[in-house]
Amino acid sequence: MNAIGLDLGGTNLKGGIVSEEGEVYRFTITPSGVPEGPEKILENLVTLSRIFLKKAGEMGISISGIGVATPGIIDPSFGGITGGADNLPGWRGTAFMKTLYQEFKLPIHAHNDVTAITLGELRYGAGKGKKNVILAAFGTGIGGGIVIDGKLYGGHTGYGGEIGHMAIRADGYRCSCGIRGCWEEYASIRGILRTARDHIIKDNLKESTIYIKINNKIENLTPKVLFDSAREGDRLALQIVDEVGNNTAIGIGNLINIFNPELVIVGGGIALAGEIFLESIKKHIHLWTLKDSRDAAEIVLAKLGEKAGVVGASSLVFENINRLNLEF
Amino acid sequence: MNAIGLDLGGTNLKGGIVSEEGEVYRFTITPSGVPEGPEKILENLVTLSRIFLKKAGEMGISISGIGVATPGIIDPSFGGITGGADNLPGWRGTAFMKTLYQEFKLPIHAHNDVTAITLGELRYGAGKGKKNVILAAFGTGIGGGIVIDGKLYGGHTGYGGEIGHMAIRADGYRCSCGIRGCWEEYASIRGILRTARDHIIKDNLKESTIYIKINNKIENLTPKVLFDSAREGDRLALQIVDEVGNNTAIGIGNLINIFNPELVIVGGGIALAGEIFLESIKKHIHLWTLKDSRDAAEIVLAKLGEKAGVVGASSLVFENINRLNLEF
Repeated sequence: MNAIGLDLGGTNLKGGIVSEEGEVYRFTITPSGVPEGPEKILENLVTLSRIFLKKAGEMGISISGIGVATPGIIDPSFGGITGGADNLPGWRGTAFMKTLYQEFKLPIHAHNDVTAITLGELRYGAGKGKKNVILAAFGTGIGGGIVIDGKLYGGHTGYGGEIGHMAIRADGYRCSCGIRGCWEEYASIRGILRTARDHIIKDNLKESTIYIKINNKIENLTPKVLFDSAREGDRLALQIVDEVGNNTAIGIGNLINIFNPELVIVGGGIALAGEIFLESIKKHIHLWTLKDSRDAAEIVLAKLGEKAGVVGASSLVFENINRLNLEF
Repeated sequence: MNAIGLDLGGTNLKGGIVSEEGEVYRFTITPSGVPEGPEKILENLVTLSRIFLKKAGEMGISISGIGVATPGIIDPSFGGITGGADNLPGWRGTAFMKTLYQEFKLPIHAHNDVTAITLGELRYGAGKGKKNVILAAFGTGIGGGIVIDGKLYGGHTGYGGEIGHMAIRADGYRCSCGIRGCWEEYASIRGILRTARDHIIKDNLKESTIYIKINNKIENLTPKVLFDSAREGDRLALQIVDEVGNNTAIGIGNLINIFNPELVIVGGGIALAGEIFLESIKKHIHLWTLKDSRDAAEIVLAKLGEKAGVVGASSLVFENINRLNLEF
């Protein structure tokens, strides 16, 4: 079996042809068209699907369906998202699954992006064969995927897994969601950059290689610059990464105490920093966990990298999850 | 079907004969014998069971098994707890299930007390007919029961549900478990008493009825005194209860964001304060929750009160959960 997997993000639309064994052919990244509005996103989804179907024909393989990973909460009877995805204006209310079906007459599946990624890691990546798993995706925010007894858990109305909005410093910074002290404020990209800026302001920046890399402009700072400098042994960068690791460990620790999982998968764009990020978390995790649950929980990096969403979206087709309800 | 339900606590041992419809006959509270050591606890469990079996005989009803709710993590093949319950010295390693079996030759079931209480509330109390439920038991600590798709979730190795050790103020008070800022430090009995003391010290105590009730001695303060005074309209007590409600709402809010449950059951000794406690939580819950999950989650008081553990323990028999493995 093969599927087309599409992974819609605020900036990029990723896609590929994925085999049931998890191999990805023709992996493609294009602009998502989010700034131009939902019609443009739809057009891009259709165009990319058409290209992949043509390629599949040339390769002599059949496509069993199209899977889409998107921010927000999918309602398969509506055919689009009915909640979340506030950073994709107009996307709520766009029945993109129906459009894709009308265009290609193939089974259309869709799910929340972090959920799809969790499914992908469970089938082909870091979570293979595991039953009780938490995936934490660190990026613009912090998304969560919850696996209980081998099954995805999305909550009672599909809004579960909002681990980034767990208050870890109830007297701390206020999140854009309105809650004070959300984990996101400390361990997402903006959390990392704030931590870094705080250190840079009070430290002697001139001695750090960060200074050169960002050309003396704090607004040029990115998590990549930070982790690169730390990997090169820069003292200030190492201090910042240490604090980032601790802030990340607080939330992971809470989840370990609550869920007693066998596995925590650290994913998302920030996790592409690799071992240096993972080790900074592991160094502090004993501070935030009870021994019995800590001993039971492995903490690992996600394995599928930038293709995780595409593989996860295709997995929706293979597992027949969230298929468009055709009674419309 | 009828069962004997036993609920072991650090201070009291509760017991009763429970029908499959959830009716409790001969509800009894005696000292647990914890200070005298595990042999005494065992003796009390056997004695109370014998009394109930005799009563059942007199009542002309048959007993299908004995259920025990206890602190700690049960291993039914060992026949006792293999972890947790640090405040019951010697209890870990005591195969009380085997002793009960050898004495009475009846099916013996046992489970963690908060888990048993959750099961009881699910079958007969506030959680009837619900599928996705979090029970939070507020007492000496904060215990958690997790119900996913109608089934108890205990974690990968049985240590799940340690919601009291979720850090909500990562720079706050250090918990006895070693973690800084545990929810327990703010919303268990000791958390409530600390909050109350902080207010009393900085406030003009003389004007408060708390002052009279505790006979001018801060060590006489209990949650009951506090909630009673608040119910009578005492200004200081109301201020304290307001802060307690907020501290309680932080953790409940986190759980709502993570689990998107349909129901949160507020239980444990503190919840016996009733509506005034519940309302103080509800007043603040909007500060700590995302709207979609907040709208989906009802927050209610536990219904089974002081008999919850006894009913829950009996439910283990009725549902054939955690039965002693007789291959010994």
